[in-house]
Amino acid sequence: MTTPLSPPASTDPSDLPVVRLLPKANARAIRHGFPWVYANEMVTDRRTKALAPGSLALLEDSARQVMGVVAVNPASKIFCRMLDQNAEAVVNQNWFEAHINRAVQLRDQMYDAPYYRLIHAEADGLPGVVIDRFGDTAVIQANAAWADVHIDALTAALVEQTGVRHVLKNASGRTRSLEGLDDVSGVLHGEAPSAPVQVPMNGAIYMADLTGGQKTGLFYDQRPNHAFAANLTKGKRVLDVFAHVGGFSLAALANGASSAVAVDGSAPALELAQQGAEAMGVSDRFATRQGDAFDILTALRAEGEEFDVVICDPPAFAPGKPALEAGLRAYERVARLAAQLVAENGVLGLCSCSHAADLTQFRTASVRGIGRAGRRAALLHTGFAGPDHPQLPQLAETGYLKSLFFRL
Amino acid sequence: MTTPLSPPASTDPSDLPVVRLLPKANARAIRHGFPWVYANEMVTDRRTKALAPGSLALLEDSARQVMGVVAVNPASKIFCRMLDQNAEAVVNQNWFEAHINRAVQLRDQMYDAPYYRLIHAEADGLPGVVIDRFGDTAVIQANAAWADVHIDALTAALVEQTGVRHVLKNASGRTRSLEGLDDVSGVLHGEAPSAPVQVPMNGAIYMADLTGGQKTGLFYDQRPNHAFAANLTKGKRVLDVFAHVGGFSLAALANGASSAVAVDGSAPALELAQQGAEAMGVSDRFATRQGDAFDILTALRAEGEEFDVVICDPPAFAPGKPALEAGLRAYERVARLAAQLVAENGVLGLCSCSHAADLTQFRTASVRGIGRAGRRAALLHTGFAGPDHPQLPQLAETGYLKSLFFRL
Repeated sequence: MTTPLSPPASTDPSDLPVVRLLPKANARAIRHGFPWVYANEMVTDRRTKALAPGSLALLEDSARQVMGVVAVNPASKIFCRMLDQNAEAVVNQNWFEAHINRAVQLRDQMYDAPYYRLIHAEADGLPGVVIDRFGDTAVIQANAAWADVHIDALTAALVEQTGVRHVLKNASGRTRSLEGLDDVSGVLHGEAPSAPVQVPMNGAIYMADLTGGQKTGLFYDQRPNHAFAANLTKGKRVLDVFAHVGGFSLAALANGASSAVAVDGSAPALELAQQGAEAMGVSDRFATRQGDAFDILTALRAEGEEFDVVICDPPAFAPGKPALEAGLRAYERVARLAAQLVAENGVLGLCSCSHAADLTQFRTASVRGIGRAGRRAALLHTGFAGPDHPQLPQLAETGYLKSLFFRL
Repeated sequence: MTTPLSPPASTDPSDLPVVRLLPKANARAIRHGFPWVYANEMVTDRRTKALAPGSLALLEDSARQVMGVVAVNPASKIFCRMLDQNAEAVVNQNWFEAHINRAVQLRDQMYDAPYYRLIHAEADGLPGVVIDRFGDTAVIQANAAWADVHIDALTAALVEQTGVRHVLKNASGRTRSLEGLDDVSGVLHGEAPSAPVQVPMNGAIYMADLTGGQKTGLFYDQRPNHAFAANLTKGKRVLDVFAHVGGFSLAALANGASSAVAVDGSAPALELAQQGAEAMGVSDRFATRQGDAFDILTALRAEGEEFDVVICDPPAFAPGKPALEAGLRAYERVARLAAQLVAENGVLGLCSCSHAADLTQFRTASVRGIGRAGRRAALLHTGFAGPDHPQLPQLAETGYLKSLFFRL
């Protein structure tokens, strides 16, 4: 375990320093639930700039009315994150337990087994904190400084409320650098799994590498979109492009697809997909193809291959505004190359996890690509991240995951 | 059976009259799949104005290139509807059968039983035609003049491709008056059911009155949203407001809700909901309350009632642009009144079937109402109409049904 920051000096609200909004700040929005205060909305003097990253403070509006307990980070553009509008709140293990308990209640209502995103940051009341649960192991992404500072109380609360035996810290997310945090992952409780973990989802078994994989080793966000696609694949030939550990292809095989091919640039990811197929007993219907997805789509076309269901779930081509134009061109290109491989009356699923490309822009790029392939499409379904990824309505426009299913 | 229009004189393309786009019309969009030509985009002379509503024609662009076979209606703002970009296409029973067969293939892939929207107009290649299937009975809404003209071939194709024994015509939709069509419903094939039809969906049984009900007696569009909500209701108390025949409440009871109350203004609709609950054997957990939904929400609050899951699926408060402001205020009011009845950590589902209110506007109104009730919300899920209601991507912005699920 490693944390570069000091443990909290005191969390007693009466000991906390005070930080204050400028008159221009939108205090009303914050009172109504907007969770962030940007640096340029704050009175920042030498004292506030000297506050330790991740320390707690009381936030006041410009008329000196107390608004709640915030976590501050002078090193971040997001200077304050609202932790509790109750200014008497004490941010300790009990406080974390209350939030985690509330989050567990919701997930247990929705899912049969404890494999889900347990904490999705702001909307679950823990700004910047993401926790994924894989049975008896949980993985914390502490993407804000305050969570690093309070990681011990958070970990203890997590163990207490969920009974998990192992808690890992994944510090590889790019958000941490925006907060001035290190990228040192480690073990917070118990031990690191010595092998990939089996994750049951939509009838499939996925292998998640919780220590070496991308982000937390498995993406739960696509669960409802996997399910939607899988329902269309019984007896069908499926192509899963940018497959990672086989998200769409293994769900399809679990639902009776006649065959599935997973394409990805990462050999380790495809190896995990292969292991998942073996664990499911469907490896006779499963194949992988490692390499550049654009090249492989082009090659499959040249080989005369055809699939009933093709799904493309690429990495974020437009993670931020500067990449938007190029990103939309890349989405259009994916749509064009993939559409050429879809059999008559087949289905094409196209996903985007780009914050910068909104639903309309992504759909337009996708439809243009389909048109350039000489195909026509009807839109069957628009899906987003699953309900274990709740959003604050105030931040809902930034919902990153979009999934479009077309019939060609 | 009744149709006010003459049967088709000839459907042989070589006999068809020619209609032509003005240079200002967007021929490219039409070639790329936009299905409509408005009257102000057409060369309209005495001859074209005299074309019989619902008759077929060949559409040419302003350079006299043939674009396809269209249905024309000089009485409608939508002057042409594209039927087939193949200018050789003959619109006869075979042509209808090909479209219906393609639509059946898709639905049979998605649903275990033949209860679904079979034809969803433009996206299923039959502009203005809606067909819902209820087992061995189908209900046609012919919302464009051409469909009235060709209703015999359509009906014969439907019987041939699906094996349904009864085909009804429902002419009550308000769209028909925009096309200058009558509102006379009737029987096209077989006979009208003498009693409400049992419709299985999401484990529930709904009673659909196919001859006297609203629209086609049951709305299939909410199926995935019913399923999403039902998954959150096991052991919970459910309030279903604007319940119609019990869409959300019966699905909840089928999924183990401890109780459900259905509220609606229509006594006949609630009677059908009650019959559904009885057919399911869950009437001991089901209650109805007939009256104005706003009044009942207010009364429930006064009575101190509380529910774990509250869902409101009102009629379109903003069917068109002129009603938008008032409609958004009504959605806000529904959200406020309903949020007050939701238990701590409960779920509030809010639906809109208003074309004029887009997703962002509807979400904003909903969140404002929740805030006015003194509650905070996380957005769990955004849903749309199910995949048996496909859309042309070119018309996707007009997707009318939006469903938001919040955790309070």
